[in-house]
Amino acid sequence: MRIALDAMGGDYGPEELITGAILAVKQAGIEITLVGDTDFLRTHIDNLKEDSRVVSSLSLVHASEVIGMDEYPVDAIRRKKNSSIMVAFELQKQGEVEGVVSAGNSGATLAAALRKLGRVKHVVRPGIASMFPTLKRPVVIMDIGANVDCRPLHLFQFAVMASAFSSVYDIEHPRVGILSIGEETGKGNSLVKVTYEMLQKSSLNFIGNVEGRDVYKGDVDVIVCDGFVGNNILKVSEGLAEAIMQMLASEIKKSLLAKLGYFLAKPAFKRFKKRVDYTEYGGAPLLGINGTGIVCHGKSNAQAIKNAILEAVKMVENNVKDKISNDLEKNQFRAVET
Amino acid sequence: MRIALDAMGGDYGPEELITGAILAVKQAGIEITLVGDTDFLRTHIDNLKEDSRVVSSLSLVHASEVIGMDEYPVDAIRRKKNSSIMVAFELQKQGEVEGVVSAGNSGATLAAALRKLGRVKHVVRPGIASMFPTLKRPVVIMDIGANVDCRPLHLFQFAVMASAFSSVYDIEHPRVGILSIGEETGKGNSLVKVTYEMLQKSSLNFIGNVEGRDVYKGDVDVIVCDGFVGNNILKVSEGLAEAIMQMLASEIKKSLLAKLGYFLAKPAFKRFKKRVDYTEYGGAPLLGINGTGIVCHGKSNAQAIKNAILEAVKMVENNVKDKISNDLEKNQFRAVET
Repeated sequence: MRIALDAMGGDYGPEELITGAILAVKQAGIEITLVGDTDFLRTHIDNLKEDSRVVSSLSLVHASEVIGMDEYPVDAIRRKKNSSIMVAFELQKQGEVEGVVSAGNSGATLAAALRKLGRVKHVVRPGIASMFPTLKRPVVIMDIGANVDCRPLHLFQFAVMASAFSSVYDIEHPRVGILSIGEETGKGNSLVKVTYEMLQKSSLNFIGNVEGRDVYKGDVDVIVCDGFVGNNILKVSEGLAEAIMQMLASEIKKSLLAKLGYFLAKPAFKRFKKRVDYTEYGGAPLLGINGTGIVCHGKSNAQAIKNAILEAVKMVENNVKDKISNDLEKNQFRAVET
Repeated sequence: MRIALDAMGGDYGPEELITGAILAVKQAGIEITLVGDTDFLRTHIDNLKEDSRVVSSLSLVHASEVIGMDEYPVDAIRRKKNSSIMVAFELQKQGEVEGVVSAGNSGATLAAALRKLGRVKHVVRPGIASMFPTLKRPVVIMDIGANVDCRPLHLFQFAVMASAFSSVYDIEHPRVGILSIGEETGKGNSLVKVTYEMLQKSSLNFIGNVEGRDVYKGDVDVIVCDGFVGNNILKVSEGLAEAIMQMLASEIKKSLLAKLGYFLAKPAFKRFKKRVDYTEYGGAPLLGINGTGIVCHGKSNAQAIKNAILEAVKMVENNVKDKISNDLEKNQFRAVET
């Protein structure tokens, strides 16, 4: 299998990305096409002084432009037709690669995927999902920012798409919840109330409303919400986790005894960090596009990039996009009926 | 000054609430009316064996009914006219008390306040705000759950009301942000985009979009969002903080050395807990009602109840409700114009 990596995205530069690609090659024996400024990339590959057998699994495809993190997606892909992300999805369109991974501008990645590959049959609004660590196994939340103004049918389809994706993590009959502000039926805003009824009539394993408090408990496998809410949950969580760690560190620094205590407990802190570290999970899958795409956090290190590439491989192996269209086919009539 | 406390609300029962009232009496020399089943409450007061001078600052008013946490607010206040929360706001209406504090059903508390006191002039939708701890000073977020489907004018008024409330915490010219999914102007859903323009034309100290990531940084004093988003942010934060502490504890328990380390660092952990503990802050103010009301977390302990009562006192002293109507008067024209 061959996956394309947008080698110009991300905050840490191409060497981190290439290292991630090499880790993926070593672990899964796949082939990777690095897309970007080929001269520039070749220098970085040479710098890494890797085994020639590994390097032979990497190929290079040139792209003369790069889309910045702050550019407006639709506008950017229109202007920069030779950007690394557009070229990467063109390769997928041509059948040269089976998936694309990027740590660049997420809106532009989704827009490029849609421009080059289009949507899966029946999908009204493709979106972006993300795995969240919990006290038990991770939960998939969709949408996390691609669709900020949603109608019930959009949310309903997010539930179908995220359920299909969870097969990648070997979750059978995923329990699906809708994010609301109370667990009882009938609680929520008007979007939630209508979507609730559609989900109830669907073939999904729908368990009803879940509250914000339940997100990290791990008693649900898929949570749907509109992209405005999902993005805020994601970013509030990142911000809070960081703030908690900073406050704890500043309190520990105030006393010598506490510093000694921290030193003794350090391996526990490290194990804890590994449990909540998003680099342990893959990236965020683009769901509903007629192909395979993963967008990673800009701050993804090599480990995170490797995991995202392996996630793309699993999405292809599990045929997530066909599963989505089949499941929508099954649920289409019921959805339209509502 | 006299404040009424709904002595039948909350998860920990009347003794915890009465203890909170006594702490407030001792600290601020105010008088408190406990509303509930008077026989029942008198027994609890006697159990506490408090100094008679302190007890003389507590008076009792009978209410024969209680509204449960899961009852539908509007329906509940219609059926239970003699519930503790309805009687408490009736006392405020009659001028017997200047504020009401409750740890009961928050929706019913707001509904009772509106039924008895009505709205402040110009207010379209009263709501509930809450203080969030941050790395610097706390931030006021509004709305946190009373209004789940909002129009731009509602959000705009939340900004005016929450700014007026922040005077209670001695914050002058509070920096106001609108929660969005990107810092740049023009990012957000349609509700945010229209509200943004209204805020820009207002007399408020508007600093633009803030992201979820910024909530806990403390670089903004007031954040506005609709009640669906606000409630989810609040509950996701509570759930995440709990999950982080549980994961950390479970990792520490795995090794004897880590346990010893934790023991040595315990005072630092305690100081940290105090910093993020919501019981250190007051309750959540009802803003836009023509009076003073605070609703507390169901799990409020005596300390939290005391702080909520003192917050109500400060709201009365700072004349928050008149400040709200004045500020809306000033901004009304501009708001309607948009």
